[in-house]
Amino acid sequence: MIKTTTTKRVLYADTDKMGYLYYGHYAKLYEIGRAEMLRDHGITYRHLEDVVGVMMPVLHLSCRYRRPALYDDLLTIETSLLERPTKMINLHHKIFNQENELLNKGEVKLFFVDMKTQKRVSCPEYFSEKFDPFF
Amino acid sequence: MIKTTTTKRVLYADTDKMGYLYYGHYAKLYEIGRAEMLRDHGITYRHLEDVVGVMMPVLHLSCRYRRPALYDDLLTIETSLLERPTKMINLHHKIFNQENELLNKGEVKLFFVDMKTQKRVSCPEYFSEKFDPFF
Amino acid sequence: MIKTTTTKRVLYADTDKMGYLYYGHYAKLYEIGRAEMLRDHGITYRHLEDVVGVMMPVLHLSCRYRRPALYDDLLTIETSLLERPTKMINLHHKIFNQENELLNKGEVKLFFVDMKTQKRVSCPEYFSEKFDPFF
Amino acid sequence: MIKTTTTKRVLYADTDKMGYLYYGHYAKLYEIGRAEMLRDHGITYRHLEDVVGVMMPVLHLSCRYRRPALYDDLLTIETSLLERPTKMINLHHKIFNQENELLNKGEVKLFFVDMKTQKRVSCPEYFSEKFDPFF
Repeated sequence: MIKTTTTKRVLYADTDKMGYLYYGHYAKLYEIGRAEMLRDHGITYRHLEDVVGVMMPVLHLSCRYRRPALYDDLLTIETSLLERPTKMINLHHKIFNQENELLNKGEVKLFFVDMKTQKRVSCPEYFSEKFDPFF
Repeated sequence: MIKTTTTKRVLYADTDKMGYLYYGHYAKLYEIGRAEMLRDHGITYRHLEDVVGVMMPVLHLSCRYRRPALYDDLLTIETSLLERPTKMINLHHKIFNQENELLNKGEVKLFFVDMKTQKRVSCPEYFSEKFDPFF
Repeated sequence: MIKTTTTKRVLYADTDKMGYLYYGHYAKLYEIGRAEMLRDHGITYRHLEDVVGVMMPVLHLSCRYRRPALYDDLLTIETSLLERPTKMINLHHKIFNQENELLNKGEVKLFFVDMKTQKRVSCPEYFSEKFDPFF
Repeated sequence: MIKTTTTKRVLYADTDKMGYLYYGHYAKLYEIGRAEMLRDHGITYRHLEDVVGVMMPVLHLSCRYRRPALYDDLLTIETSLLERPTKMINLHHKIFNQENELLNKGEVKLFFVDMKTQKRVSCPEYFSEKFDPFF
């Protein structure tokens, strides 16, 4: 199992008239979480696209909202990879505020597409050589 | 059952470097769908907040992505209410492009909060007097 | 001179905790305005990129905020082209609410880039054959 | 004069189909810059609204775009306050990428509004007692 944490402050731009982080913006927090999980292991999504030639469209997203995130909250994004990625990669996210209250839980399933052929491929070696030792 | 359709054109602002509508923006399409479903029945979310004093935070969101939405696509957002709202309201959404291809399916569960007491309440009469005849 | 109007409803997603349309989202309204001005003349930005092979990065943006746009307001975006586009295209925008109050004025300067060579080019014929009769 | 720098990584969510940071998102970078400039001086915009009861709507925004910001770029946001705030506060921003190339310059003018009376007020003491020594 792999677990990474990173932080993100809630902007005015992110809030809505309820004073909460808009429910659609959690997907962006999950994006931050997965990019930083990769970076923690010496790989980047930018390199995956630009050099390896593979992109990762999202197949499924789910979010459960427990408490609102408020303006200027310093959120902690905890991202976990529980299973070895194969045809898909499945990431689990938890969002906490600065009082360590759990605000939100999410799950994102992504797959791998060869950018030249536009066909689905398996998890590229660029990822698996870093992740396999953890499983 | 209640079903409403409305349209939304994909902006440059909505696309990402993959050339697709960013996966986090579907939540915004569902918001458009539910607002227009209410308006079609002579009620508005603005009135719910400003006059009735009830707001509707989101409890759960899920999206399944089948095909990408592309820049300038004219999307159709189909919003369905399958069950009478009680403590919660549960909306189903389908997104189609101008070729009538199904791109995305989503589900949003919301609840009702009295804005003064900040306590959870049941579906307000303002909604139920419009929706009850359909169930 | 060319003038086009189109409408856009303010979403919850667009509001901020002040209850106003977030100041950064006016750029998106201007994008809607210029896309619809093109469409009114039988041309689309999508065709410009995909077929003509020219893109239009923004060089300069300015916005003056007079009154806030509020949730669910039905905004009118008025877009004007006052001069024949040459090396640049310069668009003027006014945003009104449903009470016809002027909320915001903006100006966007864009230029033309050949997507293959990545070099700056003059206004393509695809535009000028439509716009020249107006000047 | 006061000068603050902070960083922000470009997300996939921030890019558009051109592969650039969308032109409307620079306003968000300026928001980050001004919030961090305040925080560097022991004050927060959250406290201004929640405790002092003053909010800061934007009056004018301008941006000049020189080079694109790309996905995963680690941007530096440099925020300067050149004059003592009085009825307004006027902030200058410069955005650099990790190669220290200047990508964008912006200016944001904001004013102060008493949230109870909804009337315009002068720069509150909460700000001036921190900023006055610099001018």
